Amino acid sequence: MAEETPNHTQIVSGWAAHDTSGFITPYVFKRRENGIDDVTIQILYCGMCHTDLHFIKNEWNSTIYPIVPGHEITGIVTKVGSNVTKFKIGDKVGVGCLAATCLECEHCKDSQENYCDQLQLTYSNIFWDGSITYGGYSDIIVSDQRYVVHIPDNLPMDAAAPLLCAGITTYCPLKNEGLLEKDSFPKRVGVVGLGGLGHMAVKFAKAFGHHVTVISTSPSKELDAKQQLGADDFVLSTNPEQMQARRKTLDFIVNTATASHSIGPFLELLKVNGTLVVVGLPVNPIGLPPFPLAFGKRVVKGSLIGSIKETEEMLEVCRKHNIVSDIEIIQTTQINEAFKRLESNDNVKYRFVVDIAAGGQKHA
Amino acid sequence: MAEETPNHTQIVSGWAAHDTSGFITPYVFKRRENGIDDVTIQILYCGMCHTDLHFIKNEWNSTIYPIVPGHEITGIVTKVGSNVTKFKIGDKVGVGCLAATCLECEHCKDSQENYCDQLQLTYSNIFWDGSITYGGYSDIIVSDQRYVVHIPDNLPMDAAAPLLCAGITTYCPLKNEGLLEKDSFPKRVGVVGLGGLGHMAVKFAKAFGHHVTVISTSPSKELDAKQQLGADDFVLSTNPEQMQARRKTLDFIVNTATASHSIGPFLELLKVNGTLVVVGLPVNPIGLPPFPLAFGKRVVKGSLIGSIKETEEMLEVCRKHNIVSDIEIIQTTQINEAFKRLESNDNVKYRFVVDIAAGGQKHA
Repeated sequence: MAEETPNHTQIVSGWAAHDTSGFITPYVFKRRENGIDDVTIQILYCGMCHTDLHFIKNEWNSTIYPIVPGHEITGIVTKVGSNVTKFKIGDKVGVGCLAATCLECEHCKDSQENYCDQLQLTYSNIFWDGSITYGGYSDIIVSDQRYVVHIPDNLPMDAAAPLLCAGITTYCPLKNEGLLEKDSFPKRVGVVGLGGLGHMAVKFAKAFGHHVTVISTSPSKELDAKQQLGADDFVLSTNPEQMQARRKTLDFIVNTATASHSIGPFLELLKVNGTLVVVGLPVNPIGLPPFPLAFGKRVVKGSLIGSIKETEEMLEVCRKHNIVSDIEIIQTTQINEAFKRLESNDNVKYRFVVDIAAGGQKHA
Repeated sequence: MAEETPNHTQIVSGWAAHDTSGFITPYVFKRRENGIDDVTIQILYCGMCHTDLHFIKNEWNSTIYPIVPGHEITGIVTKVGSNVTKFKIGDKVGVGCLAATCLECEHCKDSQENYCDQLQLTYSNIFWDGSITYGGYSDIIVSDQRYVVHIPDNLPMDAAAPLLCAGITTYCPLKNEGLLEKDSFPKRVGVVGLGGLGHMAVKFAKAFGHHVTVISTSPSKELDAKQQLGADDFVLSTNPEQMQARRKTLDFIVNTATASHSIGPFLELLKVNGTLVVVGLPVNPIGLPPFPLAFGKRVVKGSLIGSIKETEEMLEVCRKHNIVSDIEIIQTTQINEAFKRLESNDNVKYRFVVDIAAGGQKHA
């Protein structure tokens, strides 16, 4: 049993990878005692993000083993600290990627704490007390109330879990571009990649009234994109004629691709002054051919998840529009198999969510 | 003698490359008769742009041989068509990259005709009449008055020539970012590469009152950057310590680099939300690592020269601030040698300008 600091007293059953094989096995560890600003959460569900896959294999060279992945967490509050006003025992809550930020920099003060230089992530980062952060593939988590959000009552806890990363990651680019329904007229929005992030981008863009084109390497995704998700158009990015036919037709593209790729072909789809936002994080640098960038005065932006304030805004949008992720529930015994399917892009529609509560009972 | 269309009646002495060796030799050809909207210009000077080098060697796979390069042209009006109201014989004028645009699209109507889909460039493009466009390495040029600008009286015609491409290419990103003196408070501006474009970016940014950091691979450029051009800081991009010391300090970067490179290290210099504009056009795709883009919510923009209206605005700024290019005058017999020095980055400070008028007399 790993033990990090003297005040780590809460015993946790989790699932961890111990080396670059990424193989996940049951792992018992301790979390900190619930502090005055903390809530302790019994985890019900945890989404499987592509970032989890990168991390368990140390593909970004930043993993601290053992790693307990998971930052798309929903659960029930079981303890609250004496300073906690935002939550009470029994509340349905969510935790995403943020474990701590400095609270003092311009970004923290401006509710953009996801860009804080001292940002500490929910797993595989070093927390203030020197302990390693462990994520949501575990039966409880202790979080500062600042980084916890309420899950609206009308949203199912399993399908809501991916909102904490895939949801906020695709909501923010649309918000920052002024594409929320309240302040935008219909635009032509492209979504590259129809996975966990991409399908959320389609749902948000459609909810906001835009014309949505899905751009994918998988012809098999066309029917689902149009019939299940309501996309207006589908273009196979490997088909030059289809791509040429959409040249300079889009205002905005959310690029969720995580494999090595060039964004040149996607830039060509944008109108002059159009914007492409990169939200996928491929291991290798993205190829950026200068000609389609310059000749179309185009813009490429980065975007990293979102702040807690933005996550709360997004959850209100989801409440109003009944937006959740399309998920495939798996048991904790299926995590390794699910990672294999995620890695091979094997027809995941569209997010695996681990049934932590069921697994925790078996595990114990 | 090349002859393109029946109305091509004006005999021109020029200098052309005939194959991918890029070797330049004297070349006599014909230009169109001066039309009702045209002016004919006796060329005095023509700047040597890095684009000329790409084109004479067909590095962008779009060259039409023989190619007469040159799109940084200054000269004297010698003929005016019957519709011409903007110019009279004897006027000091300039011609840049634009030979024709459609005049009907949204970009043409919005004075952003440099982004017109039908844009025809000053050389190595096919003009409306089916002829190949030939550039400013020649003793006369015929241009539609729409694409001709007045050169302010206080600017020398030789050092003003590079304003028509290097000048406008670096002016527009500063303008589009709101960094002109009239509407900006001092910002921290970085300029990557101190060549023909880079030194103009430094001059403009300093004239507009900003703090300017030059980012270069050449330690030899530090003294000149600071003493001659007034840069406030100089960082050697090959020195990780120097780069780390400037992490997250800049608001805006103009990237003029033309060699293959990654913009990752430059993005790290930008503050959160900072913008890098790509104005150099490397042959190979630029490397765009997703992490510094996403974690800093940074922005990468493309920008292509500028419109005629913007060129006129820029020339007024240059008149007011006495801004011209730092140049090295060469004779037409030295063009090949100058291209070699340009290619090897051999201490060009900072733009070669060909003394066309002197060469034309010898040529004839």
